[in-house]
Amino acid sequence: MSDHHVIFMPSGKRGRFATGTPVLTAARQLGVDLDSVCGGRGICSKCQVAPGRGDFPKLGISVRADALSEVNAVERRYDEKRGLAPGRRLGCQATVQGDVVIDVPPESQVHRQVVRKEARGAPIRMDPATRLHVVTVEEPDMDAPSGDLERLQAALKTEWNVDAPTLPLPLLGRLQKVLRAGKWQITVAVNHEENRIAGLWPGLREDPVVGLAIDLGSTTIAAHLCDLSTGEVRASGGVMNPQIRFGEDLMSRVSYAMMNPGGDAEMTRAVREALDALTRELAAEAGVAADDILEAVIVCNPVMHHLLLGVDPVELGQSPFALATSDALRLGAAEIGLEAMAAGARVYVLPCIAGHVGADAAAVALAQGPDRDTPMTLIVDVGTNAEILLGNRARLLACSSPTGPAFEGAQISAGQRAAPGAIERVRIDPDTKEPRFRVIGSELWSDDPGFAEATAATGVTGICGSGIIEAVAEMRLAGILDATGLIGSAAQVGTDRCAADGRTHAYRLWSDGDRDIRVTQGDIRAIQLAKSALYAGARLLMDEAGVETLDQVTLAGAFGAHISPRHAIVLGMIPDAPLDRVTSAGNAAGHGARMALCDRGARAHIEGLVRRIEKVETAVAPRFQEHFVAANAIPHATASFPHLAGEVTLPDVSWNVATTGRRRRRSS
Amino acid sequence: MSDHHVIFMPSGKRGRFATGTPVLTAARQLGVDLDSVCGGRGICSKCQVAPGRGDFPKLGISVRADALSEVNAVERRYDEKRGLAPGRRLGCQATVQGDVVIDVPPESQVHRQVVRKEARGAPIRMDPATRLHVVTVEEPDMDAPSGDLERLQAALKTEWNVDAPTLPLPLLGRLQKVLRAGKWQITVAVNHEENRIAGLWPGLREDPVVGLAIDLGSTTIAAHLCDLSTGEVRASGGVMNPQIRFGEDLMSRVSYAMMNPGGDAEMTRAVREALDALTRELAAEAGVAADDILEAVIVCNPVMHHLLLGVDPVELGQSPFALATSDALRLGAAEIGLEAMAAGARVYVLPCIAGHVGADAAAVALAQGPDRDTPMTLIVDVGTNAEILLGNRARLLACSSPTGPAFEGAQISAGQRAAPGAIERVRIDPDTKEPRFRVIGSELWSDDPGFAEATAATGVTGICGSGIIEAVAEMRLAGILDATGLIGSAAQVGTDRCAADGRTHAYRLWSDGDRDIRVTQGDIRAIQLAKSALYAGARLLMDEAGVETLDQVTLAGAFGAHISPRHAIVLGMIPDAPLDRVTSAGNAAGHGARMALCDRGARAHIEGLVRRIEKVETAVAPRFQEHFVAANAIPHATASFPHLAGEVTLPDVSWNVATTGRRRRRSS
Repeated sequence: MSDHHVIFMPSGKRGRFATGTPVLTAARQLGVDLDSVCGGRGICSKCQVAPGRGDFPKLGISVRADALSEVNAVERRYDEKRGLAPGRRLGCQATVQGDVVIDVPPESQVHRQVVRKEARGAPIRMDPATRLHVVTVEEPDMDAPSGDLERLQAALKTEWNVDAPTLPLPLLGRLQKVLRAGKWQITVAVNHEENRIAGLWPGLREDPVVGLAIDLGSTTIAAHLCDLSTGEVRASGGVMNPQIRFGEDLMSRVSYAMMNPGGDAEMTRAVREALDALTRELAAEAGVAADDILEAVIVCNPVMHHLLLGVDPVELGQSPFALATSDALRLGAAEIGLEAMAAGARVYVLPCIAGHVGADAAAVALAQGPDRDTPMTLIVDVGTNAEILLGNRARLLACSSPTGPAFEGAQISAGQRAAPGAIERVRIDPDTKEPRFRVIGSELWSDDPGFAEATAATGVTGICGSGIIEAVAEMRLAGILDATGLIGSAAQVGTDRCAADGRTHAYRLWSDGDRDIRVTQGDIRAIQLAKSALYAGARLLMDEAGVETLDQVTLAGAFGAHISPRHAIVLGMIPDAPLDRVTSAGNAAGHGARMALCDRGARAHIEGLVRRIEKVETAVAPRFQEHFVAANAIPHATASFPHLAGEVTLPDVSWNVATTGRRRRRSS
Repeated sequence: MSDHHVIFMPSGKRGRFATGTPVLTAARQLGVDLDSVCGGRGICSKCQVAPGRGDFPKLGISVRADALSEVNAVERRYDEKRGLAPGRRLGCQATVQGDVVIDVPPESQVHRQVVRKEARGAPIRMDPATRLHVVTVEEPDMDAPSGDLERLQAALKTEWNVDAPTLPLPLLGRLQKVLRAGKWQITVAVNHEENRIAGLWPGLREDPVVGLAIDLGSTTIAAHLCDLSTGEVRASGGVMNPQIRFGEDLMSRVSYAMMNPGGDAEMTRAVREALDALTRELAAEAGVAADDILEAVIVCNPVMHHLLLGVDPVELGQSPFALATSDALRLGAAEIGLEAMAAGARVYVLPCIAGHVGADAAAVALAQGPDRDTPMTLIVDVGTNAEILLGNRARLLACSSPTGPAFEGAQISAGQRAAPGAIERVRIDPDTKEPRFRVIGSELWSDDPGFAEATAATGVTGICGSGIIEAVAEMRLAGILDATGLIGSAAQVGTDRCAADGRTHAYRLWSDGDRDIRVTQGDIRAIQLAKSALYAGARLLMDEAGVETLDQVTLAGAFGAHISPRHAIVLGMIPDAPLDRVTSAGNAAGHGARMALCDRGARAHIEGLVRRIEKVETAVAPRFQEHFVAANAIPHATASFPHLAGEVTLPDVSWNVATTGRRRRRSS
């Protein structure tokens, strides 16, 4: 019998094939996910398979030892040079000789899954836009003249069914040399999403294709350099956004653009140069050539989005906050002035949700996938604006809330950016009212032995966003603050750390004799405004969605990773939720960028999702103001936080400014 | 009855419409070719029509005086401001009130025909890729946020059925300002062929869209700036190709690129700068802003093609003369470094036929249209290489023939480029052997009174291509040359203008005492090689096509315009043809470029035609060599030129080099 059962696992796809059919050919005919760069030439080794042996009763098949052809010279040579794992065969060399079950190991699958190790979130399914293909191009023939490109396109059509991809001019300039250097056999990188050729190399290119997932933040620019066949992160890093010199926060950059003719172009240039520098740095770290980077995905807020594209962001600084464009963008890296990457590199920019809710929020939605599950989920990305998503499989809503930069340490008397030396964790003894704290850069608490030595290099320099949140919440828990946010006097609270500061009081967290780090009444007010805005935004979405309770809360962003859920709820930053269901998503925006980089399906998914997201504008919603005003207390109403009951005790204190010096205990 | 017959002329399209239907609406529903930029807003006046009146028995219709609504305020205002020709109405304002016949005058048709005045060739049918559309874009809404671009795309879809055209980034940067300046009503230029937005202006843009048709030659770059709605040429001009400093002819430029690293990039830069300069010059001449030029079409030979694109032309300098790409190209002007045009301007480059037969030859084919007719037509474009097309409706063949630069005056002892002072016409008296000539820049013959004064400014500087052809042919007709191309001695010919020049003789055309302009034996040999190559190429195509006689010969190119058909056939440059059917096509390549600029259909036509053209390679054809060797005589065999008989008498002379001094008369 010259006709054999062939079953591929794990897909279970099966068919009948004649004796001598290469396994790769059988896989292709059945649509089995088996990788190959060289198209069966026996040179790329991507199509490794593991044939089974013996009885497979469930599959109704019995596999003899000679079900595949014997190991041939090509396989032996590959084994000697690179080593072939025991039991592995090259799918393009092994041919079918009998009934056989063939396992396609994950590393031979194009569409393998990459599970995220560092934090929760959706796994990455590999389906990269850009893939490598080896082709043999016909040599030019004077009697049937046609361009080298046209013959390359013909070969891509015949060998890979790729239909007339375009070739960017800089690559056209290299084509003839590459074809001749490769003796008419070359490796072509094809961006299948855009049907464009993205790279050309003579012969077989063995190095994988790499791309960049970029999280372009107002303060820092972070990026992962990823292997586009395995999804592996080859290098990660970040640089400060050089636009900081034009304004710390987004609105001051918009103002800079409005006040200074050409200011937007200056900022555009600065951020592009920084991206180029970061690209080169990561390439060096990963040991790849920067101009081998063929793709990048960028996520960012709307102001950064416009400045990157070279669009004046002035409209984003004023109502109605109109974006120049909201849809996802597919651009040439050169079009947006990125010169470090490959000449044919493409850039994918995620869609923006609204004028205040950018591609970064879309990336968070992609990474966290609230739309894939049933729990009612609140996702908060805290920055100068908080971006807030609420929903589940049925509906998804989004808004942004103008928290101001207090959560980032700005507008706080001793505030600073999260950097070594900044206080990031605070505990206050409810009895003694004595604080202890940790600073960034050391694992020790300030009352641990050796703290002074461990922090000698940085000193204690200020207090960062997560530090001020914990400080305020702990002050409330320790009875230093009353529910309205007033700091009691030394006499009221019973500690000389509470000292008069003008007409109010301030609480001293730390002092080295020369300099104090204190929490002032002004700091408390700034945090109250910020947390009320955040809370009101979340409540507004809950109103719109018609829900009263949350199943889970996810704090996204670098800042979210450092917020203590307990303190966030004590403060009343976020609506009530089970404390163990308030979690950090880590850098969800960056993860979303990585998903979009590795998986074309993720791009299609987020583009569809962003269209479905219901956008809620806080600036025009009267209920936002109501929630905002009502959310001033800390927390604003104990009854609103049932999950806090039993977890913490909120001292029932109340300081009356007019009557400081008198301590009252109220019955509630 | 509320239902009326409406018949549009000249199309004859008819339908029934309710009382009150605007004429423009009726026209659109019937698919009548009636222009409109403003889409019926009554502001662009492009939709002017001329209603008929009285009986139209052939159409079976009688039109009453009140068949259309009365002239309204919009029409009156337009008439007062700009003037409306008697009987004209605005199609968007006049409504149907009875049976009516409506004439659409040519200037209201989008697809009008433009007949070429300057020379024969196909008329231009207007169907420009880029057209203007007025749209009203919805204002941004915070409750349903979307980008300005997305709302513009929605308006283009609703009002003009244009489906999501892309917007280049430089225009995205302007979009928001334009929308607000126009109070959400703007004019958009859409390139319908590529579905891209090419320009944006607030309100109604009244100026027409313009484009450039560029003939990029090795020596000169010529261009027409054309109105893309009327086809009218608004300005024409040319500059020298600055690449001349790297090499006079194409092969020396290829050599320059091979010998000098970066030499190709240098030449690329030079030609792009020249194109920008020419663009600015023509825009100034036409009184338009250079950055209002939205489209350009470029035709050129393969070497110029590659150098313009930034592709090293080295492969074009050696067998098998492989093009990097042969298909037509649609590019951003910015991609090929053209900066003078609009930021969103697009460039269309015609397809190349083969490594030696470029986009310029394709443009000639487009302009002359041998494929549209039955006569067997030979088209010759003479330059350093001659590009030769042969065929008719049934088949079209092409080749190039390596004539060398002799026809351009190079390799000729007194040769020079066609420039003021160069001898371009020559006559020799068969009896006296005395010459007379004309030089470029004067209408006088050298024996006319006042010639010296008329040419005093330039002098007589040398002899150009058409001059040397006439000189050689006249020398043959006057019995100075024998059929083999030998120049007789003074004694043999009977004039002391024939003087010894080494071991051969030279004929003195002109002398001012200090300096002679002579035709040497070497010059004759150079012309013999060139004309043999040209003749052999044409004959090779005739062999391939299986034809023995030509119905007509077209000489294309600037050079072709100056060649005398009679002298060309006496010389044996081209195969025999009826002398009155040997004509010049003028700048056919430039006309082809203009056709492709104004008419999308012309682009589709030439792309299809180039695929159909049968390419014949002279370098590998043994019959080319045979024809070449056999074609050395002047003309090579009288029997091959039946149309010459009766037109000229070829003296039966024969000079024997070994026996100079003896004159023989042979009987033939």
